[in-house]
Amino acid sequence: MKIAVLPGDGIGTEIIAEAVKVLRVLDLSFELETAPVGGAAYEAAGHPLPESTLALAKAADAVLFGAVGDWKYDKLERRLRPEQAILGLRKELGLFANFRPAICYEQLTHASSLKPELVAGLDILIIRELTGDIYFGQPRGRRTAVDGHFPGSEEAFDTMRYSRPEIERIAHVAFQAARKRNKKVTSVDKANVLETFQFWKDVVTEVHAQYPDVELEHMYVDNAAMQLVKAPKKFDVVVTGNMFGDILSDEAAMLTGSIGMLPSASLNAANQGLYEPSHGSAPDIAGKGIANPLATILSAAMMLKFSLNQPEAAARIEAAVQSVLAQGLRTADIWSEGTRKVSTVEMGDAVVAAI
Amino acid sequence: MKIAVLPGDGIGTEIIAEAVKVLRVLDLSFELETAPVGGAAYEAAGHPLPESTLALAKAADAVLFGAVGDWKYDKLERRLRPEQAILGLRKELGLFANFRPAICYEQLTHASSLKPELVAGLDILIIRELTGDIYFGQPRGRRTAVDGHFPGSEEAFDTMRYSRPEIERIAHVAFQAARKRNKKVTSVDKANVLETFQFWKDVVTEVHAQYPDVELEHMYVDNAAMQLVKAPKKFDVVVTGNMFGDILSDEAAMLTGSIGMLPSASLNAANQGLYEPSHGSAPDIAGKGIANPLATILSAAMMLKFSLNQPEAAARIEAAVQSVLAQGLRTADIWSEGTRKVSTVEMGDAVVAAI
Ligand SMILES: CC(C)[C@H](C(=O)O)[C@@H](O)C(=O)O
Ligand SMILES: CC(C)[C@H](C(=O)O)[C@@H](O)C(=O)O
Repeated sequence: MKIAVLPGDGIGTEIIAEAVKVLRVLDLSFELETAPVGGAAYEAAGHPLPESTLALAKAADAVLFGAVGDWKYDKLERRLRPEQAILGLRKELGLFANFRPAICYEQLTHASSLKPELVAGLDILIIRELTGDIYFGQPRGRRTAVDGHFPGSEEAFDTMRYSRPEIERIAHVAFQAARKRNKKVTSVDKANVLETFQFWKDVVTEVHAQYPDVELEHMYVDNAAMQLVKAPKKFDVVVTGNMFGDILSDEAAMLTGSIGMLPSASLNAANQGLYEPSHGSAPDIAGKGIANPLATILSAAMMLKFSLNQPEAAARIEAAVQSVLAQGLRTADIWSEGTRKVSTVEMGDAVVAAI
Repeated sequence: MKIAVLPGDGIGTEIIAEAVKVLRVLDLSFELETAPVGGAAYEAAGHPLPESTLALAKAADAVLFGAVGDWKYDKLERRLRPEQAILGLRKELGLFANFRPAICYEQLTHASSLKPELVAGLDILIIRELTGDIYFGQPRGRRTAVDGHFPGSEEAFDTMRYSRPEIERIAHVAFQAARKRNKKVTSVDKANVLETFQFWKDVVTEVHAQYPDVELEHMYVDNAAMQLVKAPKKFDVVVTGNMFGDILSDEAAMLTGSIGMLPSASLNAANQGLYEPSHGSAPDIAGKGIANPLATILSAAMMLKFSLNQPEAAARIEAAVQSVLAQGLRTADIWSEGTRKVSTVEMGDAVVAAI
């Protein structure tokens, strides 16, 4: 089992170190190889996703990814900015299915912005299509407008698009995931305005015919953004496109109050996957040893389950995380009165000890 | 002063009747003319926005709009569905600037999903561009894909686009609005992925040079969806495109817990405007006499201020609404223990009495 380890920028190095420590204690034989990505790779090799890093990722069964980005790269031209690495990896590896669980941990319910009764026990799975939509649609660019409100003026444009097989495959992923959960899929669209999402709705409805045991509901994206706030527990699996998924998965993650705890997986058709915490590179706290490594450790658990066929090892990690929470150990981001504040390394050590 | 009154569908008729009652008590000389729109217009005239309704709206100084939509029109072809009326009015009247206040009323703080300390006193103004973006960009439709992941397959597509003057004019609206408030504008984009929103960010930054007294911050849309949940009070004026604005304005409205109370205004360059409640047509409670008319009554107040140059009359309505809340009167949607539940008509009567 070959794992490409890409720590990236900001707190990436610190949190990845803890996840690697946890993986090493499992008595499985991994081949772990580390490479730079994002700003770190730009500094080292002049590009956020160097050929060698991409080759390593392609050859691996799975990629364990930290985080990329730092304000100091804001002035670079777009193709050299850290986040291009993550877009490049998604595209080159064909990682079309993004799994973003939004879970509210019992011990952290109070950390949510929402009233406890609205989030206690929350467990949603957002499935975001990750290689299509307006993220990658061509053509795009700047030009002189030939029509619209101000013909003759400068304009910028992008293309939103989805093809039938792209929608079909992500719909299958969603229905299959729902079968293992509460058997309900909410497909989020904007069919009342967009051609792309009328087509999305039509195709999801067609695929649903193969899953009569799963309930399908359609919801407009603006309403979904509201219902997540009003009654998040009404959702089970949410499936949507790349752009809407970007927004809703972050909204849902923040609702839980547990954003430092939330892993993610991005898979291709061969179950090769990229695993990363839902939070970002947090350059403001980088190097201070206070970042929460649990989202990354839980991402490693997802990796064991989804790409490396080691569900028991994954379960051991998940149980160990539950146990450190039960012990009252907390990094600064989730600390509250009556619990013990620990560093990044102490948290990693505690998970190792619990395993 | 000529006002086109378009009640629409669902609870539209009931809430508009109360707003009209309030307007009539003000001792101003209005010419009020009513016309069907949405599903009601489809039933009456075969089209959601009949020529006669559009002509009336164009000839008026302002449009007072109820709500449109009902499940029963879901099967109609898109161009005949109720919501096409609202898109048509925006386009035909050039209503490019949408004002969506997200205010948390003191007496209704408890109704929010969020913890009271996060929303008490909340007062955000979301300014959404309303006639551009992927809502109206051409080309759009279905075709056979020539490139992408599955060339040769069926695909649907839309065009996102913004021209320089479109961005400039909405940026001016936002900076000018911020000057009258807390002098901070958050421009929401997705410049890290979209050409359209890199351009948006560039142009907003240029326009900002004319408003050195206003603070400008840029935020990615996914982060904005999170920050609205985490710390909504950090925002003052938020300006963004049509699609992101659709999502974020509804998210923000729901956060307040006061969605039955929130008005909106959509203005063109001549200050002609369309005024409507932020909530929808609620077909499930239509005809029961229990809908909350206050968002519509407050929309009438915005109309007096923005399009009819009657700020004192607007202030009288706003004070009357504050007063009925202080009296403990509540429609069902905002009712809580210890307050008095009233009907739509009783609420309208109470506002009239308070004026
Ligand atoms: C960094 C950025 C390009 C990326 C995205 O928009 O997909 C991020 O927000 C995410 O959700 O992983
Ligand atoms: C009905 C629909 C077309 C409309 C929109 O998307 O703009 C609505 O959601 C709104 O925000 O007014």
